[in-house]
Amino acid sequence: MFRALLPRDTSFFDFFEKHAALTVEGAKEFLALTNNSSDLDSRVRRVKEIEHETDVITHQCVEALHKTFITPIDRDDIHRLISRMDDVMDLLDAAAERIKMYEIRVFTRELKTFAEILVHATLLVERAVKGLRNLKASEEILKCCIEINRLENDADALFRTCMAQLLNQEKDAIVIIKWKEVYETLEFATDRCEDVANIVEGILLEHA
Amino acid sequence: MFRALLPRDTSFFDFFEKHAALTVEGAKEFLALTNNSSDLDSRVRRVKEIEHETDVITHQCVEALHKTFITPIDRDDIHRLISRMDDVMDLLDAAAERIKMYEIRVFTRELKTFAEILVHATLLVERAVKGLRNLKASEEILKCCIEINRLENDADALFRTCMAQLLNQEKDAIVIIKWKEVYETLEFATDRCEDVANIVEGILLEHA
Amino acid sequence: MFRALLPRDTSFFDFFEKHAALTVEGAKEFLALTNNSSDLDSRVRRVKEIEHETDVITHQCVEALHKTFITPIDRDDIHRLISRMDDVMDLLDAAAERIKMYEIRVFTRELKTFAEILVHATLLVERAVKGLRNLKASEEILKCCIEINRLENDADALFRTCMAQLLNQEKDAIVIIKWKEVYETLEFATDRCEDVANIVEGILLEHA
Repeated sequence: MFRALLPRDTSFFDFFEKHAALTVEGAKEFLALTNNSSDLDSRVRRVKEIEHETDVITHQCVEALHKTFITPIDRDDIHRLISRMDDVMDLLDAAAERIKMYEIRVFTRELKTFAEILVHATLLVERAVKGLRNLKASEEILKCCIEINRLENDADALFRTCMAQLLNQEKDAIVIIKWKEVYETLEFATDRCEDVANIVEGILLEHA
Repeated sequence: MFRALLPRDTSFFDFFEKHAALTVEGAKEFLALTNNSSDLDSRVRRVKEIEHETDVITHQCVEALHKTFITPIDRDDIHRLISRMDDVMDLLDAAAERIKMYEIRVFTRELKTFAEILVHATLLVERAVKGLRNLKASEEILKCCIEINRLENDADALFRTCMAQLLNQEKDAIVIIKWKEVYETLEFATDRCEDVANIVEGILLEHA
Repeated sequence: MFRALLPRDTSFFDFFEKHAALTVEGAKEFLALTNNSSDLDSRVRRVKEIEHETDVITHQCVEALHKTFITPIDRDDIHRLISRMDDVMDLLDAAAERIKMYEIRVFTRELKTFAEILVHATLLVERAVKGLRNLKASEEILKCCIEINRLENDADALFRTCMAQLLNQEKDAIVIIKWKEVYETLEFATDRCEDVANIVEGILLEHA
């Protein structure tokens, strides 16, 4: 009875979902960027805009956390979840900016594959955080988490292949360093998706 | 009375111990690899096999976590512990694969030293997680944790020395990048051993 | 009544404050180092001395944690907080040592800017952990945390600019790798300041 009267704000799920949807948009924008270097500047700008929008949501979410008395899931988990989600979009933005700043103009097939993995992973993050509204459907959420883990392994293997190719074939060390930075940033983005999956899995475990 | 009737599964300790023992085997295989580049391919394959075996244990452990009602130690700690333990073997595998893929055929004395540190660190991880069965013997476990921390410092210092040598003596930047990747991967593996030590220490603190 | 009789050790705040004050001193020493390469050796030595002093405090803090029955804030938070604080000073020391070992003798304007950011960030960490004594003044502590986050963003942007400059202008890949290592170490130090801010913010959330 008493509990029902307390402000049990569920808007945290709204923050998660809006943030996740924007990050999917950011990943799709990044994928479009890898298809065509002619509209690079406007794509990079658009990715940065999306990154600013997700930043605003993150700040609103953390502020709400400080003002809400009872949270639907553990406060610390909300804090860690939105922070790691935010890292994904930060890294997508960092990768786009690096491509521009390092004056990379010829895109590799592997760059596109990284972007495709990230579109896939951010869509799964979106489904996983949507699932948090109803923790009873944990089977479905867990499947997303496992799939995100698999994609992170794919990104890891792709990174190693890219590096081996570069190091064995490219003669210009500076070109190698540039691409390494870009691939690494994208690989880190999939790592942060995996962190999100692990936090979601942890929340499921606590509510099991 | 009621508590005794609940399924208080202690198989988690079995998962930890099996995983830790395999990782020690992986580290020893990696050390053998650094002694002799002639059997490189079969060693790299064996390291990858062990990595697959630890992967299976990790998945079984996490699945058990979702099905077990009462766990001997905090669910989140079990999840984090097995995940960080798994990272160690992943990184040993990644280092072996890099040596193969980058076509490195002359091994340095420092590579062997890194491998020795990792054999030592994984043996300590094995002792520390064995200790979790009986949290009363915390002095002994703590000693392992402190020793793992010390080894991580050693690996850190070794990495810096290796990099200084490479950067001041090697003229081919591509060779520098290759070795940096290998040394870095091994240094990360000791970082993950330290994470395991910190999680174990955290568990001790909660049960103090 | 009973509670008042238990050893509620508040010396943890002393550990945090002493550690934070020393790290500020370390950051200032590092800043002084970036002004003048002629006294490099003595500055690097002084940074290492401070790093040893913070190490001792960290060990004392963790030891006290194992011996104290009731802690003023969550045991795990104390453990994570002092560990992340310690990482900041470790990385300042690593950056100083790298400059020396890589025989870098001409310092860039950007190196000094990184050092200034770190003096600023460590001063804010000092204020934030001082604030933990009185969790009622959470507004003030939160402001410090937000400001640390902003500085981390600045460091991130600075790192990208430095890398773009190096990669587009410097012809010697080995010089690029050296500076990348130094800048990266300093950027990691601001990341660890942000981790400290996040842990402090988490503690505030739990006591809200």
